Amino acid sequence: VRTLRHIGLSSHCRIVRLLLAEKQLEFELMVEPVWERRREFLVLNPAGEVPVLTESDGLVLCGLYPIVEHIEESYPELPLLGQSKPERAEIRRLVDWFARKFEREVTSPLVGEKLLKRFLERQPPDTGAIRAGLANIGYHLDYIAWLSERRRWLAGDKFSLADIAAAAELSAIDYIGDVPWDGHQGAKDWYVRVKSRPSFRPILADHIPGVPPPKHYANLDF
Amino acid sequence: VRTLRHIGLSSHCRIVRLLLAEKQLEFELMVEPVWERRREFLVLNPAGEVPVLTESDGLVLCGLYPIVEHIEESYPELPLLGQSKPERAEIRRLVDWFARKFEREVTSPLVGEKLLKRFLERQPPDTGAIRAGLANIGYHLDYIAWLSERRRWLAGDKFSLADIAAAAELSAIDYIGDVPWDGHQGAKDWYVRVKSRPSFRPILADHIPGVPPPKHYANLDF
Repeated sequence: VRTLRHIGLSSHCRIVRLLLAEKQLEFELMVEPVWERRREFLVLNPAGEVPVLTESDGLVLCGLYPIVEHIEESYPELPLLGQSKPERAEIRRLVDWFARKFEREVTSPLVGEKLLKRFLERQPPDTGAIRAGLANIGYHLDYIAWLSERRRWLAGDKFSLADIAAAAELSAIDYIGDVPWDGHQGAKDWYVRVKSRPSFRPILADHIPGVPPPKHYANLDF
Repeated sequence: VRTLRHIGLSSHCRIVRLLLAEKQLEFELMVEPVWERRREFLVLNPAGEVPVLTESDGLVLCGLYPIVEHIEESYPELPLLGQSKPERAEIRRLVDWFARKFEREVTSPLVGEKLLKRFLERQPPDTGAIRAGLANIGYHLDYIAWLSERRRWLAGDKFSLADIAAAAELSAIDYIGDVPWDGHQGAKDWYVRVKSRPSFRPILADHIPGVPPPKHYANLDF
């Protein structure tokens, strides 16, 4: 059976969960306490990070980029990375934008400092990093609005991994209540459309013990 | 004509330069002063970052991941991303290791603080970041040695993008003289083999005005 080792608020893990659900590929979720650095887990992925996907034939894929490309190559039905070269270039550009740039500028300063550092490392959050994350999120929401005014979905006519990556990153921030939806109607409209897809339901049902999400988190109409 | 916009010590740009050279694909190099945020450049890549590759038919690829996958898909001769699924999984895992993990833990703290921040932003380097970068490099060199004792090249029998990514990251650190080669003979032996490839010559000829490399930088025998 296909297994995904993950942690709940990891945005990269959320991208993989959404990708597998959109591809209609069944999988079992296992929470991996990466902070324990379990020997059995380090054998699977010496980097000690999630997501890690184990295929039913035993093949192990470590990290977002190897997983995403493997899934698209192995299961080309319901393509999510585009088909023509320009489509693929644009989808991958936006996946990189959200999974790397947005992650570095917003998700990691906010979710990293507010949750992972506080709960896992028992350290006080770096308030400078949190301020920077909150300051950065606005222009990313503007960019989402700008794209979705011009295109049906972020990368073009078709729903793609670009939408998945952007929505996964935003959903982790939304869980801690830090997305300034007011004043960002364009991004909000697009997010409601992604949030309404069946693939998103398990993400909206996530519950981190001791950290309840805000009320609107799972509400499809906000 | 194919054009690569780059900056000299950017390790991601170096990965693309090596990849194109190994694939025997001709290209013109253009230095892009990303810190000027030129309007013409932001139209090409709204992220404002290099590498950016423009193909001769006008297709624009932004960022390491979109470029690498596009090149491998478009020019499958002389494959550098592997052919079987396990090969591809392992090569991409190591590309991710070096271009993301090593970059974050070593290259960005060292090259970022010592050169980019000092020269471009005219700010004093963060000495804490530099100390962390120097502390982290050792275990990455040990990992390279461990892999190359067990395999002909980092990801297996064949030279691949994994070797390119690791060598590109290391070459940027080596330019500023921060690789502790003494005591890391295994990694050094592997690096000499990569460094000796014709594709590496332009990297060794790089010269940043005002920042000469150490003597051993371009020396194939150290």
